[in-house]
Amino acid sequence: MSRVKRLAIIGVGLIGGSLALALRRGGYVAEVVGCGRRIEALRGAQQLGIIDRWETEPALAAEGADMVVVAVPVGAMEAVFRSLAGCLSAQSVLTDVGSTKGQVVEAARAAFGIPAANFVPGHPIAGTERSGYQAAFPELFEGRRVILTPLAETDAAAVHKVRGMWQHTGAEVVEMAVRHHDEILAATSHLPHVLAYSLVHTLAGMDESWEIFRYAAGGFRDFTRIAASDPGMWRDICLGNKAAILECLRRFTDDLDRLRLAIEASDGEHLIAAFSRAKQARDHFAASL
Amino acid sequence: MSRVKRLAIIGVGLIGGSLALALRRGGYVAEVVGCGRRIEALRGAQQLGIIDRWETEPALAAEGADMVVVAVPVGAMEAVFRSLAGCLSAQSVLTDVGSTKGQVVEAARAAFGIPAANFVPGHPIAGTERSGYQAAFPELFEGRRVILTPLAETDAAAVHKVRGMWQHTGAEVVEMAVRHHDEILAATSHLPHVLAYSLVHTLAGMDESWEIFRYAAGGFRDFTRIAASDPGMWRDICLGNKAAILECLRRFTDDLDRLRLAIEASDGEHLIAAFSRAKQARDHFAASL
Repeated sequence: MSRVKRLAIIGVGLIGGSLALALRRGGYVAEVVGCGRRIEALRGAQQLGIIDRWETEPALAAEGADMVVVAVPVGAMEAVFRSLAGCLSAQSVLTDVGSTKGQVVEAARAAFGIPAANFVPGHPIAGTERSGYQAAFPELFEGRRVILTPLAETDAAAVHKVRGMWQHTGAEVVEMAVRHHDEILAATSHLPHVLAYSLVHTLAGMDESWEIFRYAAGGFRDFTRIAASDPGMWRDICLGNKAAILECLRRFTDDLDRLRLAIEASDGEHLIAAFSRAKQARDHFAASL
Repeated sequence: MSRVKRLAIIGVGLIGGSLALALRRGGYVAEVVGCGRRIEALRGAQQLGIIDRWETEPALAAEGADMVVVAVPVGAMEAVFRSLAGCLSAQSVLTDVGSTKGQVVEAARAAFGIPAANFVPGHPIAGTERSGYQAAFPELFEGRRVILTPLAETDAAAVHKVRGMWQHTGAEVVEMAVRHHDEILAATSHLPHVLAYSLVHTLAGMDESWEIFRYAAGGFRDFTRIAASDPGMWRDICLGNKAAILECLRRFTDDLDRLRLAIEASDGEHLIAAFSRAKQARDHFAASL
């Protein structure tokens, strides 16, 4: 028997599409209704068997759905929530996949008044630099972590249902406070994206940019891979998690400035101490993967 | 018939070891003599068939060699050159694999007086974050670029011999001026390493560092892979290519500061313009690989 009878995916991109594909395996979900702005993409997702049918209005897609997953860029969440307000039955569970949680909770408060007891903010720590339903694949969440940030008013049964859904995709589900999530993600994900974008932007603006990229090797390729991510999505994240990102950026630039001074002063001891500490942490991280 | 009769590799690590292995294929080299400071490592490299025999003194290893490749960290180049000074025959070609070329040329000038006509500064744009002879493999240079930076006084026949050697490894060989090399590499390699080290160093110093690394995903893993590189080697590179690295760092921090101001001001248009330009450049780079 299917655990989710009707799943509405608002935003059928990499994350939403992959979730639908993962839940179809083993019949965890009986029916998937997609929703998006581009009819062409919805038709494409239907042809690939990601969704069974589609609507262009969130309220219509969510009709009769026992699970509604909002998987649009965080900047578009509030508009979707507003469209859903008043349309969800008491039996529907609502969750999202946004990379920033404080902002999404605020958007929900703005749209629903107080957040509904059946709204469970969530964030799967998974993705690639690619985007769109064509990039979706059912294994995306296997072995990855999904963070849920339930609020004081969130219904335990709703959390249970969202947890079960993600566990079916092969992910490990953890819970933490909204603010804590946003601080952690600013450090591990948002700041690295800002730095990768900024570096490639700087190099692209240099006179020898063509040559620079020509002589780049594997280290550069890996370091800058995330700079190929979707610009609109990352603008939204930067604006949505502003305070935590600025705080991380401040710490980073302070440390970088110390490194710069050490290079200027030819202070090899400072450099080797900083590089060694970083290598140790990175080796530890690699071993834990 | 072998093109190189006796190859002396001073520094049998990832690069020196991989070069020896690549040249052994097809019998391009008849005999490989290794040189290093750690006898245990030299014995290990001999057992793995990377070198035929070994010496611990560069001058002894280079005796009778028609090709001498110095593959030690750039900070150790000058000491090796001094040990070789006066010991190389007119028939020997000397080259190096250092990541900074201005500094290596200076080291050669300091050791040899004026650089010998048979000294060809070189740099294979290849490597991994691993180091040591155990990490060596013969395919390391396939499809990669090797930059030679011959000087005005460098003998054309010596350049020809070094070029042929690298071509046998499957690399594409290009020539450019010393200073130009150092500027390009500061941008594509040295600056990214400094940033990756600096970011991991910053995160490792944060209170929640354990949790931060726990919730890091694939983007973070790739972005920080180069922070696992050898700290001593990168200290040497930072000190050896100081001026070009500081100039790149200055441009980078200027642009990053503009991004920071845009985040502070919630200037979404600036963010999307910068991110889009970076994505476009990164996509172009990926397509050219």
